[in-house]
Amino acid sequence: MKLSAIGEFGFINRIKKKIPGSPGVILGIGDDAAVTAMTPGMMLLATTDMLAQAVHFDLAWTDPASLGRKSLAVNLSDIAAMGGIPRYALLSLAIPAELPLEFMESFMNGFLEQAQRYGVFLIGGDTSASKAGLVINVTLLGEQYPDRVATRSGACSGDIICVSGTLGDSALGLDLLKSGCSSGEPVKKHVDPVPRVELGILLAERKIPSAMIDISDGLHADLGHILESSSKGARICIDDLPLSDNFKECLAKNAQNYYRFPLSGGEDYELLFTLPPSKLKDAEYAALIAGTSVTVIGEITEETGLLLANADGSSYDAEVHGYDHFACD
Amino acid sequence: MKLSAIGEFGFINRIKKKIPGSPGVILGIGDDAAVTAMTPGMMLLATTDMLAQAVHFDLAWTDPASLGRKSLAVNLSDIAAMGGIPRYALLSLAIPAELPLEFMESFMNGFLEQAQRYGVFLIGGDTSASKAGLVINVTLLGEQYPDRVATRSGACSGDIICVSGTLGDSALGLDLLKSGCSSGEPVKKHVDPVPRVELGILLAERKIPSAMIDISDGLHADLGHILESSSKGARICIDDLPLSDNFKECLAKNAQNYYRFPLSGGEDYELLFTLPPSKLKDAEYAALIAGTSVTVIGEITEETGLLLANADGSSYDAEVHGYDHFACD
Repeated sequence: MKLSAIGEFGFINRIKKKIPGSPGVILGIGDDAAVTAMTPGMMLLATTDMLAQAVHFDLAWTDPASLGRKSLAVNLSDIAAMGGIPRYALLSLAIPAELPLEFMESFMNGFLEQAQRYGVFLIGGDTSASKAGLVINVTLLGEQYPDRVATRSGACSGDIICVSGTLGDSALGLDLLKSGCSSGEPVKKHVDPVPRVELGILLAERKIPSAMIDISDGLHADLGHILESSSKGARICIDDLPLSDNFKECLAKNAQNYYRFPLSGGEDYELLFTLPPSKLKDAEYAALIAGTSVTVIGEITEETGLLLANADGSSYDAEVHGYDHFACD
Repeated sequence: MKLSAIGEFGFINRIKKKIPGSPGVILGIGDDAAVTAMTPGMMLLATTDMLAQAVHFDLAWTDPASLGRKSLAVNLSDIAAMGGIPRYALLSLAIPAELPLEFMESFMNGFLEQAQRYGVFLIGGDTSASKAGLVINVTLLGEQYPDRVATRSGACSGDIICVSGTLGDSALGLDLLKSGCSSGEPVKKHVDPVPRVELGILLAERKIPSAMIDISDGLHADLGHILESSSKGARICIDDLPLSDNFKECLAKNAQNYYRFPLSGGEDYELLFTLPPSKLKDAEYAALIAGTSVTVIGEITEETGLLLANADGSSYDAEVHGYDHFACD
């Protein structure tokens, strides 16, 4: 069945029926704007991400439910990076006429399943036709008390630099997809990433991070954002980068991408944060509760610039850069 | 110059420099999420709209600055329909590589000019490449005290039905654009509509509307939304529909579209609201302050269904329907 058979309002009505009620939602989908009550004393956090077909995803590589989960996950990761509690989502879809209704139903099931998993309520959105590919935009609203919000700008010299989980899996997964492989953990991490929402909240509650960001553009680029915002430098030991067993099995240590994927491959959606060394045990405990790990990968320096070092202390030379969506190929 | 020459971050930095500070914005563009302080006691209003090239706009018909203003205006109109005070915007752009930097600079100037006009601050967004046309998504956040928020669901039998400004101009403008005419007031109203933000707030402050909506899909469809939400019916006198002098000059009264455009042409972005007859004088005064007019076009009935009547009381027969984005042409 095609979407045109049930129309825009038919599609919206199907979505409405799947959404549970929430005490904070005074008025959800179905009016000109949603009306919600925010928690007194908390700041409002807001982030938005657009995913465009043939730029951010390939329908040959992702199933619709994973795409639904990922379109919310990339925003959840941004709220997590602020230490925020995700609350409300708005979803805009430009849908090509040829996309079957079943595809969009699976997409919505994945999206709403992810929303429920993280306590997020879909309060509004927009749907329209698209003459050129599926375009998804999610705006996610969250909350947090002002003294708990983590930003990119608080890193201090002497702080250690930690990262959650493992790095490079998503870039490896994308590489595998491009070469025709469509299964395995790295592929799963690329098409269906898990945002570190619990860890972000637990770290924020304990006021552990002096600065925090999520790794969407790659460690090198995203650490660069912290350093620029904090006017500091950093030294990273590349042998300390956490790599998954899958990653090590897939790539030999001398392979071209062995360090390139963890350093500059994007979309890991892990949390990268700085903290005084005295708080490391608290951070490790928070990660344990959140079902992940944290690894110390380096330290913040007063001198600006990012130094990459080998285990023996010598300088690691790599041409790395974040992915710039407008850059020429 | 092309966007690729300055890159994604270069483009974002240019935008950041144009945005003034605001007391409520704790952290604007440049972190993973924006952080804002909302007004204690007020509800948060949230709306989102996506505009896709070749579906919602034609670059041959609109200049970039008008497109920037319109992409915010359609969202401002939604907040106005709730009686809300617009506060913060998030803007996502998927930009084709061939679009010149100058186009996007003009677009942003239009967008930010509109934002300033209505006291809105751009607090975040996302930019990426597009393989298929320009796609714009705006999320607009607003505020209002809970007892002032206007919804679609409060219309009562005996209430009169009012509309601001005039109807049909935007549809006429689109028709003129399609036939090669690119100037004049109706064309301007289509490519650069004025949202009724002041009127919405003034009506809400005085608790005048029992129900309110903005006319984006056309009077017939949008009044239908009020009737459905309120479980009521209505009787409209088509000779009472407010028409601009331009409209009357362009179309003879017996022309095919003379009533069709005001009844089912979309994108007028006027406010349609219901109220007890005793509050009409207050509504007219609010419209006077807001620089527009309100016209009584009918009344709410207990019996469901929408009756269209001629001036002599006879039934007006028209095949009218709202624009459904998924409908087959």
